[in-house]
Amino acid sequence: MYKAEIITVGDEILIGQIVDTNSAWIAVNLNIAGIKTGRITSISDNGNEIKDALRQAEKRADIILITGGLGPTSDDITKKTLAEYFGSAKMIVHQPTLDFIRDRFARRGMELSELNRRQAEAPECSVVIPNRNGTAPGLWFEKDRKIFVAMPGVPDEMMKMFPDVINMLKNKILLPQIVHRTMMTFGIPESVLAETIEDWEKSLPANISLAYLPNIETGVKLRLSTVDSGNAHEVIEKLFDRLFPVLGNSIYGYEPDSLESVTGKLLLQKNATLATAESCTGGKTAHRITSVPGSSAYFRGGIVAYSNEIKTDLLGVRPEDIEKYGAVSETVAAQMAKCARKKLNADYAISITGIAGPDGGSAEKPVGLCWFGIATPCGVKTFSQRFVMDRLGNIAAASSVSLNGLRTELCDNTEN
Amino acid sequence: MYKAEIITVGDEILIGQIVDTNSAWIAVNLNIAGIKTGRITSISDNGNEIKDALRQAEKRADIILITGGLGPTSDDITKKTLAEYFGSAKMIVHQPTLDFIRDRFARRGMELSELNRRQAEAPECSVVIPNRNGTAPGLWFEKDRKIFVAMPGVPDEMMKMFPDVINMLKNKILLPQIVHRTMMTFGIPESVLAETIEDWEKSLPANISLAYLPNIETGVKLRLSTVDSGNAHEVIEKLFDRLFPVLGNSIYGYEPDSLESVTGKLLLQKNATLATAESCTGGKTAHRITSVPGSSAYFRGGIVAYSNEIKTDLLGVRPEDIEKYGAVSETVAAQMAKCARKKLNADYAISITGIAGPDGGSAEKPVGLCWFGIATPCGVKTFSQRFVMDRLGNIAAASSVSLNGLRTELCDNTEN
Repeated sequence: MYKAEIITVGDEILIGQIVDTNSAWIAVNLNIAGIKTGRITSISDNGNEIKDALRQAEKRADIILITGGLGPTSDDITKKTLAEYFGSAKMIVHQPTLDFIRDRFARRGMELSELNRRQAEAPECSVVIPNRNGTAPGLWFEKDRKIFVAMPGVPDEMMKMFPDVINMLKNKILLPQIVHRTMMTFGIPESVLAETIEDWEKSLPANISLAYLPNIETGVKLRLSTVDSGNAHEVIEKLFDRLFPVLGNSIYGYEPDSLESVTGKLLLQKNATLATAESCTGGKTAHRITSVPGSSAYFRGGIVAYSNEIKTDLLGVRPEDIEKYGAVSETVAAQMAKCARKKLNADYAISITGIAGPDGGSAEKPVGLCWFGIATPCGVKTFSQRFVMDRLGNIAAASSVSLNGLRTELCDNTEN
Repeated sequence: MYKAEIITVGDEILIGQIVDTNSAWIAVNLNIAGIKTGRITSISDNGNEIKDALRQAEKRADIILITGGLGPTSDDITKKTLAEYFGSAKMIVHQPTLDFIRDRFARRGMELSELNRRQAEAPECSVVIPNRNGTAPGLWFEKDRKIFVAMPGVPDEMMKMFPDVINMLKNKILLPQIVHRTMMTFGIPESVLAETIEDWEKSLPANISLAYLPNIETGVKLRLSTVDSGNAHEVIEKLFDRLFPVLGNSIYGYEPDSLESVTGKLLLQKNATLATAESCTGGKTAHRITSVPGSSAYFRGGIVAYSNEIKTDLLGVRPEDIEKYGAVSETVAAQMAKCARKKLNADYAISITGIAGPDGGSAEKPVGLCWFGIATPCGVKTFSQRFVMDRLGNIAAASSVSLNGLRTELCDNTEN
């Protein structure tokens, strides 16, 4: 398998002003093309740093992709440095690029500056890769059977140029196909999951690799990867199939499924509607549900009942129950869900009431304790869980648990 | 100035499944502590790769920060590899960590597995850095006057641990005092802002650096940084003071202020309460308001009126106005805010109704168009804006604009 390295050039990444999203995008697309990314390196706009990174990368990799530093300003030194690195300081004007830039400026009614004219120059030993979205063209170099590609750092320009780079690579080398598939699980902590599927993991063929990807909102993802020798999709599918008897309903789909998209699909299948009643999660659950395009087809709306008066006056929870059991209680969670279902005229409703923190806890009801309600056409179910993260972590986890509670309810319901 | 390198370990970064946001965050915070990040390297979960990256980094840098691969599963090999690298394969149980993990599991009513128990082990030659947000502790190594710190890859856990790392570094080495202060602005696009404050920027002393940090949710932040020679705080303060006559109410505070925290403070000052009525933002605004600890003191609650029936039945918007003007209209935005203020018995209410996308637009009302309402004790104000991002971007931007609308209303109101 061909190995690539990505080098991103730019001080703005090293001071943390910009998050390097280019590398992940390039890695995904190299991977799809059957090229493994061995390393990603971010360095400053400095000639020696760039040369040092190139020297090291070419020792390890077959293909070196560089982004950034191709612009017109004084801190953009990648092109000049590459010319020096490949021993061809001579720059030649690339006429199609010059014409393109001149036309681009003319359409905006602007004159071409000397700085912009220089954008059309390329080192004599390079092949120019057109940039249809900007003025800095990409550059392709070959040396000792290694390929070097420099692309602009502006994400949009790089992304538009990348298919051309892949095509040029395909003309040079024979690329394998890599297959990935990621199973989504929720409700089992990573370490418990690892023990639960230990036998399965040990039985995986040597050419199939497994990764655990835990996340507060999505749960633990399980990713299988392999080089495709013709039937990789089927092989991976069968391996994942063997997890269903072990993990059951903890599996909720495959990437890019999310708890909110999966519950949405289940609601659509049932032609059913949903409402929310949130206290401690303060709208996070409704926000996640409505992050799914098309959610207006099943989501009626929600009430963020942050004060007890809203719980009683707007939702209809009995004040004497709040008095007796407290706002964070099974009784109030159940009523919130039932009332939301009725008030918002929905088939299903979920409720969350808890203590997000950092303050507000007691010995009996500690910070992180949440009660959940799931109201269905057949009644209401309740459960509680305690979270031990910070405020935002507790809110995110609680919203996931409520969505997962609804999901399992919708699944059980479907199976009956 | 001390030089650091960041090494992120994890196949998920190299296949592009995860964008490495940790490195940018660490780089910013190293920078604040007066440490320069020289290089960021992402490598796979592979012992030889890790060792090779360590060998190269320690040639160039004084401090090497590693994230990722400290978890309990078989692909997490950073701890084992570090032990080998520093020639001390012997692992010792760190009792406080074991107690912490056991307690964490006990509170969830779970037994400690062997895998979790192993999380509490650390190489004999390392110093353990507590992880208050997870089970994998950080590790600190020293070798040939170089410092190596391994932290978990889960952003939340790493971020919570980082202040301890900085304190440990300060105990070891003398760091220059870098002073940063970040002014928060909202409502002026970066390029317009840059033109507006061009004279001010040109007048900045040579030893003070300025960074523009644009963000959908926070607006454009302006960061001034300098090495402290005794009075940097005052110097920076005076420089920022000169921006108030230029930018006026577009300035809403200094980091860590957010639109939601600033509006919260203004409401507390007025002893006033707030309610929300959201359509297209689907609960995002309520979520942001309730992300602020203590927000229950002023936030009564909100209604996510995702369907027209909820707008009419629960909020009380006139159905004939929805019929006549459409749900995305000035009239409906005004009524939503007024009704929310009344129904939720609050002093102020904000409303948002719009088309988040990707579908649902028309020639007259394109995707991204939003109408906003701000209801106050003195009446209701409305305004509209169009956003041109994707669904989540439009939702985030619209919630910011509504919070900023409330903020300017509260400020104007205070000044009168």
